[in-house]
Amino acid sequence: MSDGADTDTASPWRATVLTLYPEMFPGPLGLSLSGDALDRGAWELEARNIRAHGLGRHRNVDDTPAGGGAGMVLRCDVLGAAIDAASPTSDPRPRLLMSPRGRPLTQGRVRALAGGPGAVIVCGRFEGVDERVIEGRGLEEVSIGDYVLSGGEIAALVLIDACVRLLPGVMGKPASGVEESFEGGLLEYPHYTRPRDWEGRAIPDVLMGGNHGQIARWRDERSRTLTRARRPDLLRDDER
Amino acid sequence: MSDGADTDTASPWRATVLTLYPEMFPGPLGLSLSGDALDRGAWELEARNIRAHGLGRHRNVDDTPAGGGAGMVLRCDVLGAAIDAASPTSDPRPRLLMSPRGRPLTQGRVRALAGGPGAVIVCGRFEGVDERVIEGRGLEEVSIGDYVLSGGEIAALVLIDACVRLLPGVMGKPASGVEESFEGGLLEYPHYTRPRDWEGRAIPDVLMGGNHGQIARWRDERSRTLTRARRPDLLRDDER
Repeated sequence: MSDGADTDTASPWRATVLTLYPEMFPGPLGLSLSGDALDRGAWELEARNIRAHGLGRHRNVDDTPAGGGAGMVLRCDVLGAAIDAASPTSDPRPRLLMSPRGRPLTQGRVRALAGGPGAVIVCGRFEGVDERVIEGRGLEEVSIGDYVLSGGEIAALVLIDACVRLLPGVMGKPASGVEESFEGGLLEYPHYTRPRDWEGRAIPDVLMGGNHGQIARWRDERSRTLTRARRPDLLRDDER
Repeated sequence: MSDGADTDTASPWRATVLTLYPEMFPGPLGLSLSGDALDRGAWELEARNIRAHGLGRHRNVDDTPAGGGAGMVLRCDVLGAAIDAASPTSDPRPRLLMSPRGRPLTQGRVRALAGGPGAVIVCGRFEGVDERVIEGRGLEEVSIGDYVLSGGEIAALVLIDACVRLLPGVMGKPASGVEESFEGGLLEYPHYTRPRDWEGRAIPDVLMGGNHGQIARWRDERSRTLTRARRPDLLRDDER
C-alpha cells in the first residue's frame, strides 16, 4: 500500500516555462542525458507562450515604461494571466523569474529545487517585467550570474539542466555529481587520463602510484590551492 | 581605400564552439534578435564536433581518470587536435573553456569579448578535461556561475548570447543595454507599464508626474536600495 506522500514522490519533476519563445524548448535539454531522461519520463517540460494571453488582435504583451526610458516592459496583466493559467494557487512548485536582479543561483539552491516537485519559470524579455506581477504572484527572482542576457530563456535552460542532472537515474553513475566543484565548497582538482605523456607533459607521478591515501591528499591539496588562487570568496576566513 | 585594420574591424564577430553535441547549436541563438543577426551575417557561429578527432573506429574521446575516481575524462590528445584544427596559432580569438572551476563571467568580461574578434569556446563534458590541454593550448577557464551543469554547451550559449546582444546593430535600440543591471554597477530599478492600476496595485505616483529629474532620482534610489538588500557585494564599501 502506498500513501499520498509516496504518490507525490513518484510523480516526475516538472518544469513549466512561460516564455515568448516556446520553440527554444527543450532545445539542448532534448539531447544528451537530460534528453534521454525526458524521453523516458524521468522529468517533464512544458513551454507555454505568454503571447497566448496577449491583448487585442495583435496579442500585445508589452508597453512603454511608465516614467519614460528605453525599451518595453512586459505587462503585469498579461503575465499575471499567463501565470494563473499555467500554475493554479494549489501548485506546490516555486515560481521563479529569471532576472539579473535576482539572488545568484547556487548549487545549494539547485539541490533544493531538484529535491522538490519542479518549478514554474518565467522568462523575462525586453527591459523587464512590470514590478507588480513580481509582487502579486510571489515570483522569486533568480540570477544565473553577473551579466545580461537577451532574455530569460537561456537562463531557464541553465537552471533546468542543473536541476535535472541531479534527479535520480539521470546521470550515468551515482558517484558522479558528488566530487565536483561546489559540492564540497571547493573547486574541483585537476583531471588526467591517457596518454601518460603528451607533448612533453606527463601525468603527475602520485596519480600513477596507486596509493589511494596519497592520491586523495594530493587532490584535496590541489583543490584548496586552486580555490585559494581563483575563488578565495568560496573559502572560510581561516582557510584563505 | 581601406587598410588592413579596417578590414579586420569589418569582419563579423565569430564564435567557434568545440563540442560533442554540435546539434545543440545555434539552438536558442537561432531565434529572436540573435537569430535575426545571425541570419544577416552580423555574427558567425561554427559548431565543430570534437568526436571528429576521436581515436580508433569508435572515435573514442575519453578515458578513465588517472588515480581512480568516478566518470570519464576528455583526452588531451583528442581535444588538442580538435582545437588545432579549429583555431590555428595565428587565430587572434581567445580560447575559452566553459568550466565551473573558471573565473566567474562578468559583464565587463562580456563587453571585452564582444569588442574583440570573437571566441573559440571548448565545451567540457564528463568529469572534466585533461589538465594538460588547458595548459598546452592556453585555455582560459570561464564559469557562468556557482552551480554544475551537465556539460559546457548551455554555458557556451549563455556566453555567446551575452556577447552577441552587445554587437552593433543586434539590439532593437542603441539605448537599451546601457541602463541595466551591472552596466552601472547596480541592480536595475523596478519597471512599470500600463495599466495604471492592477489588482489594487498602482504605478508609483512619481513615475506618472512627468518630472524627469524626480524620476531619475527615484530610480537611482530604488536601484541602490535593491542592490544594498540583495547584492551588497556589488557596492563599494562606502555605499553599503
